[in-house]
Amino acid sequence: MMQYRLRQQDLCSNARLGQLRMSRAVIDTPAFMPVGTLGPVKGLEPEDLHAMGFRLLLNNAYHLYLRPGHKVVAEMGGLHAFTGWSGAILTDSGGFQIFSLAKLCKVTDEGVMFQSHIDGSTHFITPETAIEIQESLGADIMMAFDQCVALPASRDVVEEGVRRTKLWAERCQAGRRRSDQALFGIVQGGLDPDLRVQSARDLTAMGFEGYAVGGLSVGESKADMYGMLDVTVPELPEGKPRYLMGVGHPEDLIEGVSRGIDMFDCVVPSRHGRTGSLFTTKGRVVIKQAQYARDERPIDPDCGCPVCLKYSRAYLHHLFTAKEMLGVRLNTLHNLWYFSDFMRRMRAAIAQGSFSEFREAFYRSQERELGESVVSSEHENDRTQDS
Amino acid sequence: MMQYRLRQQDLCSNARLGQLRMSRAVIDTPAFMPVGTLGPVKGLEPEDLHAMGFRLLLNNAYHLYLRPGHKVVAEMGGLHAFTGWSGAILTDSGGFQIFSLAKLCKVTDEGVMFQSHIDGSTHFITPETAIEIQESLGADIMMAFDQCVALPASRDVVEEGVRRTKLWAERCQAGRRRSDQALFGIVQGGLDPDLRVQSARDLTAMGFEGYAVGGLSVGESKADMYGMLDVTVPELPEGKPRYLMGVGHPEDLIEGVSRGIDMFDCVVPSRHGRTGSLFTTKGRVVIKQAQYARDERPIDPDCGCPVCLKYSRAYLHHLFTAKEMLGVRLNTLHNLWYFSDFMRRMRAAIAQGSFSEFREAFYRSQERELGESVVSSEHENDRTQDS
Repeated sequence: MMQYRLRQQDLCSNARLGQLRMSRAVIDTPAFMPVGTLGPVKGLEPEDLHAMGFRLLLNNAYHLYLRPGHKVVAEMGGLHAFTGWSGAILTDSGGFQIFSLAKLCKVTDEGVMFQSHIDGSTHFITPETAIEIQESLGADIMMAFDQCVALPASRDVVEEGVRRTKLWAERCQAGRRRSDQALFGIVQGGLDPDLRVQSARDLTAMGFEGYAVGGLSVGESKADMYGMLDVTVPELPEGKPRYLMGVGHPEDLIEGVSRGIDMFDCVVPSRHGRTGSLFTTKGRVVIKQAQYARDERPIDPDCGCPVCLKYSRAYLHHLFTAKEMLGVRLNTLHNLWYFSDFMRRMRAAIAQGSFSEFREAFYRSQERELGESVVSSEHENDRTQDS
Repeated sequence: MMQYRLRQQDLCSNARLGQLRMSRAVIDTPAFMPVGTLGPVKGLEPEDLHAMGFRLLLNNAYHLYLRPGHKVVAEMGGLHAFTGWSGAILTDSGGFQIFSLAKLCKVTDEGVMFQSHIDGSTHFITPETAIEIQESLGADIMMAFDQCVALPASRDVVEEGVRRTKLWAERCQAGRRRSDQALFGIVQGGLDPDLRVQSARDLTAMGFEGYAVGGLSVGESKADMYGMLDVTVPELPEGKPRYLMGVGHPEDLIEGVSRGIDMFDCVVPSRHGRTGSLFTTKGRVVIKQAQYARDERPIDPDCGCPVCLKYSRAYLHHLFTAKEMLGVRLNTLHNLWYFSDFMRRMRAAIAQGSFSEFREAFYRSQERELGESVVSSEHENDRTQDS
């Protein structure tokens, strides 16, 4: 099934190199997963992702459960056959989307009653059905069904979420019917260090194939997020992959890696591509700005992506202002390439024992000359679905 | 510059095989040109078009004049450098768009005063500026600035349009500054056979590198359109390419070719791709229909396009109903592949002396089993811009 191998530990931080071996892909970690909410990363084909070096993609179980339905996907041979993606797939359990997107009706220990954000229809999801859905979809990695608590929350509410997340994680394990898929547990605990530690211990005691840190990147400060990683990650077993859900911006990836995280997913590169906010080695290029209308340079002269090799800022500015959908595709391709390359360079730095230098060089490189600070004060919720 | 070579004449119709040689491409005719209104065919990259066998693309001068402006395009090195398309480009003059899309202020012999359909700004285009715009854009083939009359129209109005089209064509020729671009004249004349003949004679007397039949496919019946071709094409010189503007559906391509037309352009394949109406060897597949939700077959089992080789109707149905932009891209790729292949098969039939059989087989093949008659009663105007 899935094997994780820890290959190298950074001496100056908790950053580590590893490899995740699955039947469909071998993933060098730390790794970033693009998000294909309803199957595709918006506007891209599987070949596009493959060409950028991605071999592991996230699909949203909640969205696919509602449309086209997990049973349709199963009938069509599972997600890989349905979408044409030959790499590995991780599906989230839907827990986060139900709590953030659907109209919530009722949460009990039994499960969650909610209304679809599309047509208002009522659904009831239990830990067992969350697993059934993910087994039907046929993901390589499934996620346990967790209770994600909206922040800020009182200690009682967070504690109740931690208790229920443990209970549901046990039922997810017990509910498995297939043996060819990995299952990750999800640590909750809000911004309470004690509850984070407790949740991590609850889950590690159950023995999952990997562990995710959930309930973060939902609007809290970066300091709070990093602080929760500082207390949570040390509780997780060294020999299993660690996944920080819904994160993030490049600086979050560096900070997560430095705290021992191996896997990330986020809609940031694709969503920012759609809104014309382009990542470069020197900061953000906001392509709609008039200054780019006659700029013959590529998005990033230091980037080797197919978009930068071929198209000018002027053309991308034209496509964006004229609302040409090709612009969305090209912007998304560039941003995802940036993220793929960013992780590759980060892995190389760890391998060479120069991760600290990489981190410092990154912060130095993000000059403000391009009109936007890297440590932006965006308080958007990056963990919503990409739709 | 541009050379046309007539290679073979069909014995049973006016269909003919030819070759259009330009510095950037050699085009086998009859040929279909995809439409890239503002540069790209919506959602596609130049490589996509190239892979389908297209080497000649239409761009709209009117749209590019308004956004990003022909001077910006010229500064960026012309359309080929700006858009990354290495094949040949034909630009229309903007005449049709001004008459169909802009808010028209005033037409005089001097030119046309109109308001932009985007921001209402006022512009004045003369035959000379239409050529200046197209020379700035750097198309391989330019079109003369013509007056396209809305149908139905009185004989007086059509006659005035024919007179003005001749006058403007002369001024277009006189206004040329570059010698590396071809210029085609456009025959007008509404649905009046005499005026069509007169317009064709007006233009051929001036000696253009090619001749277009304009002012058709604007809502008239197919019988009327074919009738106008019957009287117009015989007036055009055998040794020059003939281009039927804004046409059309597969049956129109067959009927145009059988009447001696060499070139076509139309938004039908791309626009129908966006609305999920997919061309197949047996008629149209309307992908949103519920019958395709669990249909594992490709759009067309007889099609060899990359979409049919890889994706099911069920997946394309899912992408369409979930409004995933990848669906638009895949549908457009399939439809354009169909058109490219359709023209290739038509050329092969002419070469083999079996064009009549090809034509008959086409009409027989378009069964109604797929829910839509091929000779549809759509009275849509296929000649609007693709936006």
